[in-house]
Amino acid sequence: MIHDDFLAHDAADPLRTMRARFALPDGLVYLNGNSLGALPTATPERMQAVVTREWGEGLIRSWNSHDWIGAAKRVGAKIAPLIGARADEVLVADSTSVNLYKLLVAGLKAQGGRNVILSEPGNFPTDLYVAEGAAWSVGDAELRTVPADQIVAAIDERVAVVMLTHVHYKTGRMLDMAAITAAAQANGALVLWDLSHSVGGVPVDLNGCNADLAVGCGYKYLNGGPGAPAFLYVAGRHQAALQSPLSGWMGHAAPFAFDDDYRPAGDIGRFQCGTPSILGLAALESGVDVFGPVDFTALVAKSRALGDACIALVEARCEGLELVSPRAAGSRGSHVSFRHPSAYGIAQALIAEQVIVDFRAPDVIRLGFAPLYNSFGDLWRAVEVLAAIMAERRYDDPAYRVRNAVT
Amino acid sequence: MIHDDFLAHDAADPLRTMRARFALPDGLVYLNGNSLGALPTATPERMQAVVTREWGEGLIRSWNSHDWIGAAKRVGAKIAPLIGARADEVLVADSTSVNLYKLLVAGLKAQGGRNVILSEPGNFPTDLYVAEGAAWSVGDAELRTVPADQIVAAIDERVAVVMLTHVHYKTGRMLDMAAITAAAQANGALVLWDLSHSVGGVPVDLNGCNADLAVGCGYKYLNGGPGAPAFLYVAGRHQAALQSPLSGWMGHAAPFAFDDDYRPAGDIGRFQCGTPSILGLAALESGVDVFGPVDFTALVAKSRALGDACIALVEARCEGLELVSPRAAGSRGSHVSFRHPSAYGIAQALIAEQVIVDFRAPDVIRLGFAPLYNSFGDLWRAVEVLAAIMAERRYDDPAYRVRNAVT
Repeated sequence: MIHDDFLAHDAADPLRTMRARFALPDGLVYLNGNSLGALPTATPERMQAVVTREWGEGLIRSWNSHDWIGAAKRVGAKIAPLIGARADEVLVADSTSVNLYKLLVAGLKAQGGRNVILSEPGNFPTDLYVAEGAAWSVGDAELRTVPADQIVAAIDERVAVVMLTHVHYKTGRMLDMAAITAAAQANGALVLWDLSHSVGGVPVDLNGCNADLAVGCGYKYLNGGPGAPAFLYVAGRHQAALQSPLSGWMGHAAPFAFDDDYRPAGDIGRFQCGTPSILGLAALESGVDVFGPVDFTALVAKSRALGDACIALVEARCEGLELVSPRAAGSRGSHVSFRHPSAYGIAQALIAEQVIVDFRAPDVIRLGFAPLYNSFGDLWRAVEVLAAIMAERRYDDPAYRVRNAVT
Repeated sequence: MIHDDFLAHDAADPLRTMRARFALPDGLVYLNGNSLGALPTATPERMQAVVTREWGEGLIRSWNSHDWIGAAKRVGAKIAPLIGARADEVLVADSTSVNLYKLLVAGLKAQGGRNVILSEPGNFPTDLYVAEGAAWSVGDAELRTVPADQIVAAIDERVAVVMLTHVHYKTGRMLDMAAITAAAQANGALVLWDLSHSVGGVPVDLNGCNADLAVGCGYKYLNGGPGAPAFLYVAGRHQAALQSPLSGWMGHAAPFAFDDDYRPAGDIGRFQCGTPSILGLAALESGVDVFGPVDFTALVAKSRALGDACIALVEARCEGLELVSPRAAGSRGSHVSFRHPSAYGIAQALIAEQVIVDFRAPDVIRLGFAPLYNSFGDLWRAVEVLAAIMAERRYDDPAYRVRNAVT
């Protein structure tokens, strides 16, 4: 493995022109697109148009004239092909946490007699916290956690919803969506997949897996901006039977009739709640639009090749870092993680050298690969800096004591 | 009442310089700031900075370096003085509907043995819908509605939360917050006030009324942009006892510890849920900042004077419009509504003449007065156009058949 090999990879990369669609600062190696995606070059202009023309000049009229009212479904329909869903099965709304809550309570209520949400310990915290809150809300329900490899065996007649994150936020481990979905359904449970670390980075085929429910994040690989609205997926066959606890006016069958009684929309729109964030939707739409011309097979191949090369290069050049991600690319998301007792200091030392990675408590660093804009050259540079930090034990520098609050 | 009187009012208006802080199109009379507030002139530049500099260049680092992580509390603290709250009692988060749900479920759960949400029929629909959803979520609870003048008498030992809108979205009627709060508390109920049509338009003194809970909208008089994040208020004395059902990671005492178990923050932060919309918060902060130098006494006086003049002028010059708002300015919000069987056509005819008002089903037109940017000249022009429409019965024009979807 020499530098020339990496440059050759970049020269042959079918996605190499996509980098120019992002406004990344010169000299920065940004391996954190799995936490906050980069800014698409088209987005600032789009935001200015929404702010000055649509809001400033169109004012209230833009709900119709610029189809603000249709944005939640329109952007959902654009995300659908990235996750193997039908256009009318995906909606953009609220945050991932709020959408999790909607679908968990809907699932608990629909699965009369079953009152357990089953998940794994160490799932992304908000998923577990929201499940606790959902169980507490409906009462006489509980969150149960078992290690991922025991999930299928733990699906008994009390389990209403199995809630799992497809690609683990910390380790990058990717679960077998088709197999777990089939096993859960055979035992009468619904499965709710969190696609936050999947969408835009790995292949997802919800319809092909006969999936029930899913949610996902807009600000990671979808490049929708900080705190972008999230999305939710409800399989067409479930839409009429599942009711959102967050029955706000935008989920009503006729929001502008101003009826006193709630009557949910007949379609995915029933999972809307309040007035949607038009600024957030505009930025997310701009981020999703970047995927329009992209060959997804090439994107997935590049994600896997970057991960494989990362593991090989780190193991060859850096002492003391323990791989915590799966070695097999097919079982891994688009990020690779290593464990080290001084992980926090290592991450800070990398950031000080303009290599942006993520620390995840207590002892993990994550290198995220966004195939649209990360290159093999980025990876080479990152590992070169990492190797020097490890060799020089720079992570012990007392400057790296303060804890960073990143999402 | 002659035109010169109105021009004299504008010349003497202590807020007359504020109009220049808004980017309103020339020739437009915008009386819909109670539905979607106008664009502050400072906002486009602020949004560009957030998008290109904070997101594009700062990337993930901006959670700290630009204090994204503190934005929800920071903007809440800026709203606090507009509603008579302490800085640490207000949080910006999610939508009004989602915040209503959080506080309704929290209230139902905290008020063990009481299981009724009491409201009035004809309250803003999302409030009633969300109350239905909250009662359904917790089970064995219900929404009960009685006319506003019977609310106090209806507060019995089953009522957990009284949920009322301070200024009615349709009629503009303002309720007596202090009296109703005191009566409810004397009967063991919490009161949840929806301030969506109050904040920034009328005086609100939550602490002075010993209020328990409140929510409100960011995109009306606060000028936060379409679908801006909303705010919630929880009196300091209640914060430790009330738990949000939407227990997302941002409400955790230590979100970045990534613990499996939820432990709510000890302060107002516990009512956060998912990752906040940074773009939405930035636009809202810019809108709220416009209120910084404003004398609120002058703002309220202007709001009342505009409303009084509107009623007088419409009654003097327009046939067939029935006032549905209170005549007494002290019992009225910052909008004035009239009833007419052809209200929809009247609103459309006004809009066609660049006078933007609101239609509210089935038969109401609303004229909203945003004291920061509406002038007496605006009002004169609006009524001049309205008088012509009424005299010529222009509302019968078949061009005004299509129903507008406005919020």
